[in-house]
Amino acid sequence: MLPFEKSEYEARIKRSKDKMHELGLDVLLVFDPANMNYLTGYDGWSFYVPQLIVVAIDEPYPLWIGREMDAEGARLTTILPEENILGYPDHYVHHPDRHPLDFLAHQLKMRELDRHEMGVDMDSYYFTPNGYECLRRNLPRVTFIDINDLISAQRSIKSERELEYMRQAGRIMNRVMEVAYEVVKPGVRECDAVAEIKAAQIRGVPGEYGGDYPAIEPIVLTGNRTGAAHLTWTDQPFEANTVVILELAACRHRYHAPLARTIHLGQPPDDYLRLADTVIGGLNAALDALKPGTTCEEVELAWRESTQRNGVKKASRIGYSMGLNYPPDWGEHVMSLRRGEKKPIEAGMTFHVIPAIWQAARGVEISESVIVTETGCETLCSVPRAVHVKT
Amino acid sequence: MLPFEKSEYEARIKRSKDKMHELGLDVLLVFDPANMNYLTGYDGWSFYVPQLIVVAIDEPYPLWIGREMDAEGARLTTILPEENILGYPDHYVHHPDRHPLDFLAHQLKMRELDRHEMGVDMDSYYFTPNGYECLRRNLPRVTFIDINDLISAQRSIKSERELEYMRQAGRIMNRVMEVAYEVVKPGVRECDAVAEIKAAQIRGVPGEYGGDYPAIEPIVLTGNRTGAAHLTWTDQPFEANTVVILELAACRHRYHAPLARTIHLGQPPDDYLRLADTVIGGLNAALDALKPGTTCEEVELAWRESTQRNGVKKASRIGYSMGLNYPPDWGEHVMSLRRGEKKPIEAGMTFHVIPAIWQAARGVEISESVIVTETGCETLCSVPRAVHVKT
Repeated sequence: MLPFEKSEYEARIKRSKDKMHELGLDVLLVFDPANMNYLTGYDGWSFYVPQLIVVAIDEPYPLWIGREMDAEGARLTTILPEENILGYPDHYVHHPDRHPLDFLAHQLKMRELDRHEMGVDMDSYYFTPNGYECLRRNLPRVTFIDINDLISAQRSIKSERELEYMRQAGRIMNRVMEVAYEVVKPGVRECDAVAEIKAAQIRGVPGEYGGDYPAIEPIVLTGNRTGAAHLTWTDQPFEANTVVILELAACRHRYHAPLARTIHLGQPPDDYLRLADTVIGGLNAALDALKPGTTCEEVELAWRESTQRNGVKKASRIGYSMGLNYPPDWGEHVMSLRRGEKKPIEAGMTFHVIPAIWQAARGVEISESVIVTETGCETLCSVPRAVHVKT
Repeated sequence: MLPFEKSEYEARIKRSKDKMHELGLDVLLVFDPANMNYLTGYDGWSFYVPQLIVVAIDEPYPLWIGREMDAEGARLTTILPEENILGYPDHYVHHPDRHPLDFLAHQLKMRELDRHEMGVDMDSYYFTPNGYECLRRNLPRVTFIDINDLISAQRSIKSERELEYMRQAGRIMNRVMEVAYEVVKPGVRECDAVAEIKAAQIRGVPGEYGGDYPAIEPIVLTGNRTGAAHLTWTDQPFEANTVVILELAACRHRYHAPLARTIHLGQPPDDYLRLADTVIGGLNAALDALKPGTTCEEVELAWRESTQRNGVKKASRIGYSMGLNYPPDWGEHVMSLRRGEKKPIEAGMTFHVIPAIWQAARGVEISESVIVTETGCETLCSVPRAVHVKT
């Protein structure tokens, strides 16, 4: 039982091949686990060893190449016929004198797929420089063309079924944040709060559907750690009269709904509430601007015009496209909401809009995950857009 | 508050520099998050963007180079002085025309560290071929030498403090498996069981210490999925009279104690119990053989001699060195227990011995995480070495 109809995977493969035709490529090597999943359904925690999908323009289905012990997982989770699933023997794994991509190169040669140009996603996690050198050594006549965006860009516009999974993730995320608001309090160890948060992520919506693992672990920032962006939890207790920033997500069939919120333990000072109002006003302005017909930089400009009159500055992007992914990131790496980025916003795109302000002992993070509709945007979650004050 | 004394990090840096002297290297680029943590303490979920540690032989401390918004995390979690922490601006992130390693190359040139040979861990996750090409383009006079094992091999022998954290992880793991044995039962959704397992991983030992996130998500195999090696959970209920394989871990300050166990829901057939006895006998034989003075392949041979008289065969390695790590793997990629691997076993090494047998609908996984002592080995966990039968 795959999350999508076979025809949906086939349509994705077809669109990728159309792109290959445009670029004059006969072969694609797809190392990115999200792209592997997108094209074939493959879903296993096996990306810690080299694995990939080979798309050959004349073959109806791609090849899956991975470790022999994971071939059964490929049989169970992909649309691929048996003969397209190739496992390499275990003696290739973590061996100083052999590399799994030696096996790949051999397979490509046997099938006469070692053409003069080959598309590769050169910035994908888990495809290492060693693997790349191994391919160059084995396939000296091949020129490797970076096609990093060929499949990822396609992923940025979602189908109805994909959007449905993201809405389901959003519903799980609502429950996760409800749990977080309940359990985070002075004297409770950060790890005990995260234990409940993680359980809620995976439990999902009881009686309806469960949750999958998000691509990023819970980010928990409190005390002097609110000036940092990506630290996880400690086993120290939360203190009274402090800020607690949470950046969390829920995940359904690898589709994400991230959400950041800020809890204030104890009544916040007025200047903190003013900062929070500015952050919320900026987020609202960005969401109002996010619709088909605008560009990434125009959305950022709407945010900037709203916030700079209150003296808030921010050096980093205010959001990015996201959706289907594996650790270490739920972002798609296709679009960023920032100055100078002129990519057009289209219906069916999904963004995490997160104009976070990190300041030691008083940061504010309030975000929304959204679907771009024909006329504006729809939020995946429905948690009030406010600092949650616990007195 | 770092998990180790500053002097322990300094000793690790010194040992790395001794190795650099031996190899005639003036500069190391360390991209692997575990190696970054090992040398400096750095601990944040920021490896989804390029980041690294630069070890220059003449400088007392390494440089940390990462995204500007993560520099504060480096200040809070490393032993490094302020001037050694360098953040690159956000416009380098996920940009088609710029790469964060352009910034790195510029910094190396400014410091005249662009020598003719440079050590790089070429098989580290999160250092992509694009990043490598970026360095080659910017530093045309540099030859990059693969030093993948230079730091990882050092990591394979643990200090007393490191072993202490692994024992703490082992104690958490005991509790995690206790919870798993309680919650896995017919009719319970896999996701609901995993929710409780994950909560136990993070809660740690109440009143003493909490748990960190393990580098691999819970592996849950049941029904026809027991023939696969690395699938995660679904939201379907467990069925009666089936095998449930769990490969889990607990983690403390990034140090792991993995453990696999098998639950049989309902009374197992006799031939299944015989298979389990063979697996346990093989594991015992391997653990008996695992001591200083032997080699990796001798441990595998002890396992093979024990199991093959009962007709059990296995194409993959039966264990590997593990300890400090980040997703996607708790393994160190330094030693594998398998035929042909002649590396010597030394006191202070830590292994996950996992002679798993995957067969459709009747696999058995029973493993131990161990410390090699002067005379044998010590297990990190104390969960009975048996199939857990729930009737």
